[in-house]
Amino acid sequence: MDNTDCLDRLLAGFRGFKAIYYEQRPERVQALVEEGQHPSVLFIACSDSRVDPAIITHAEPGELFVVRNVANLVPPYEPDSSHHSTSAALEFAVRDLGVSEIVILGHSHCSGVRAMLDKGGNGQTDREFIAPWVSIAAEAARGQDAVNDLDRETGAGRAALRVSMQNLLSFPWVAARVDAGTLGISGWWFDMQAGQLHGIREPNAPFKQLT
Amino acid sequence: MDNTDCLDRLLAGFRGFKAIYYEQRPERVQALVEEGQHPSVLFIACSDSRVDPAIITHAEPGELFVVRNVANLVPPYEPDSSHHSTSAALEFAVRDLGVSEIVILGHSHCSGVRAMLDKGGNGQTDREFIAPWVSIAAEAARGQDAVNDLDRETGAGRAALRVSMQNLLSFPWVAARVDAGTLGISGWWFDMQAGQLHGIREPNAPFKQLT
Amino acid sequence: MDNTDCLDRLLAGFRGFKAIYYEQRPERVQALVEEGQHPSVLFIACSDSRVDPAIITHAEPGELFVVRNVANLVPPYEPDSSHHSTSAALEFAVRDLGVSEIVILGHSHCSGVRAMLDKGGNGQTDREFIAPWVSIAAEAARGQDAVNDLDRETGAGRAALRVSMQNLLSFPWVAARVDAGTLGISGWWFDMQAGQLHGIREPNAPFKQLT
Amino acid sequence: MDNTDCLDRLLAGFRGFKAIYYEQRPERVQALVEEGQHPSVLFIACSDSRVDPAIITHAEPGELFVVRNVANLVPPYEPDSSHHSTSAALEFAVRDLGVSEIVILGHSHCSGVRAMLDKGGNGQTDREFIAPWVSIAAEAARGQDAVNDLDRETGAGRAALRVSMQNLLSFPWVAARVDAGTLGISGWWFDMQAGQLHGIREPNAPFKQLT
Repeated sequence: MDNTDCLDRLLAGFRGFKAIYYEQRPERVQALVEEGQHPSVLFIACSDSRVDPAIITHAEPGELFVVRNVANLVPPYEPDSSHHSTSAALEFAVRDLGVSEIVILGHSHCSGVRAMLDKGGNGQTDREFIAPWVSIAAEAARGQDAVNDLDRETGAGRAALRVSMQNLLSFPWVAARVDAGTLGISGWWFDMQAGQLHGIREPNAPFKQLT
Repeated sequence: MDNTDCLDRLLAGFRGFKAIYYEQRPERVQALVEEGQHPSVLFIACSDSRVDPAIITHAEPGELFVVRNVANLVPPYEPDSSHHSTSAALEFAVRDLGVSEIVILGHSHCSGVRAMLDKGGNGQTDREFIAPWVSIAAEAARGQDAVNDLDRETGAGRAALRVSMQNLLSFPWVAARVDAGTLGISGWWFDMQAGQLHGIREPNAPFKQLT
Repeated sequence: MDNTDCLDRLLAGFRGFKAIYYEQRPERVQALVEEGQHPSVLFIACSDSRVDPAIITHAEPGELFVVRNVANLVPPYEPDSSHHSTSAALEFAVRDLGVSEIVILGHSHCSGVRAMLDKGGNGQTDREFIAPWVSIAAEAARGQDAVNDLDRETGAGRAALRVSMQNLLSFPWVAARVDAGTLGISGWWFDMQAGQLHGIREPNAPFKQLT
Repeated sequence: MDNTDCLDRLLAGFRGFKAIYYEQRPERVQALVEEGQHPSVLFIACSDSRVDPAIITHAEPGELFVVRNVANLVPPYEPDSSHHSTSAALEFAVRDLGVSEIVILGHSHCSGVRAMLDKGGNGQTDREFIAPWVSIAAEAARGQDAVNDLDRETGAGRAALRVSMQNLLSFPWVAARVDAGTLGISGWWFDMQAGQLHGIREPNAPFKQLT
């Protein structure tokens, strides 16, 4: 593939999407355009190309409001004037769209988790943004005891996921809705090797296999 | 649907994904697990539930490294110790994964763009994160002359998209690769009403219909 | 693959179908089970593994009533006590289901059409059923002049398609509905090399590109 | 929908198929066109719009050679000069393509099975082709004892499926390959209400749940 073949393929895929969603069965998309989006779920997932939320849950347009960042992290509540990408999306999903569920999706084989363990952003010393970003959960991730590398990564990734869930609850308008029973939060762990999902509904609960 | 029906549906969708990608045709996912991801494209898209990159380009697991935030914004290069979600993903995609293309996908009917025009985060005065976040492009968005509301929104959204492309080029390791011809950048505008994509390859170029 | 690997894959595919159509979005299939089928279209297609009607038209369960036989042939009206597979399906679709359209789908690279030209069922002299079956349209197929082999096959296949359309009209309850304007008939020709559909609405009309 | 809306939708679906299979990922279809089809499985299924083999097994182009007729019947071996649709496809699949597995797919809620029980083709006395066609298995179907209507239909449908499997073995070139261990035959029963598959590998074996 030369430089733009990958774009040509995406454009061809878009034509397939258009034929099916606009020409063959336009009712669904038309309603989403005219009535706006009303997703029930905010999904916070990793940017990793292998864990697309719509693909792994077979979701349709309109079903998932999605944040994707490195290592599916939620930073703590820090209302200042900085550019808080994830917090802004969280605020919009909870306060404006009124989602009833938030799912943070962690996964095995995550480079972001490895960066937490490396302490240095993928083993590279000149990285400017990765280490500060993954520092959100790095201490918790490195606190894990582990028997071997894979277990260490699993433990680290799940520890980071628990931190993000706790950080979720540091946002007052999240905590209030969770307390009121109008918002549920989940941490899901996708084992890419086995094709399994494990999950928790509270930051410190033990993980159980969901499916 | 009660509170968790939407989660049960996502778990059922995951079982469908597992049956097809792990049991029926496992070769592809197995390779992605064993050999790691090698996506060619970084996609920066909106969190909006109607513009899932994998759905609208019919991409497969492994093809797109994806950032999703409100209004598909790229902040300017600010290498400090803050938690820069989008910049960290950009750094990882460009410097570690070595993607050859970056696509920023804007879209019509975007609440984030409306928040830029409202000056106040969806018309709500008590929002803490949305206004600071969309301030990245708000000035440019509000600078648009417009005949009617929809045109105003289109102009604002495209102006914001140009800002994000310019901000991309403020990252020195992005600009260097673009100059060297090893990295291409695109701004795509998805007209949700018409089902069309328009695009630019440079921040100040005129938009052309792509498909 | 050993002998039954191909079956294991089909069963895995069925589990994917079940997860998605029975567990994730059961509404559609439930209605089809409870209310019965009401397809608008009878599709008469070739058994060839490359021309599955549901795949090439992206149809959903319940949309197409389908006959598939070698070379997508319709035999002439012969109401006797023999086992007429295609005529029985045609009768059920038209008289019981009341479809409003019949599409006969021919295609390039068809072994059944080649058997017509060979006069002997795929070049084999000991075949018992293929030659009598394709004799329905063999004379018409062999009547084509052709410049080269591919053109000869295209001409032969389209001539056979015209015969099937004429045979359709030999069924009195088809002809009556076509005359009354309550049933439409189409011959579609799928060019597998180019990915194009050409079609006719009357047996002797010239083929036009449909898409 | 007016008379041809359903066709316009199928043509839109075809454009989606073309965009995805010819433009986005052409490798697979190109190989199928250039190298011809090599399916491992012959699928004999009902014409019912709800039991499309490709949909319910999530098969791809090239994987299933498919016969579809009313009630997924296989007539007995009768090598004469008549137009034997199903036998011709069977012959081509076994002797020319050399498939390694044949699956006959029966299903619940089958109008063809009901026609066997009615003795008269869907309760209509003027049908010309349905009754003779379903007579292939009607006697066996009516021989079932049953407690209630649904059980009676299930018993009748499975009895008809066993007849088709026995008829398969009446074809000498099928029986020879089965005896040699190079061809397997299966009867699958799709319970549309429950979303389950039950199956047998010999005509008189008890049905077991497959998935």
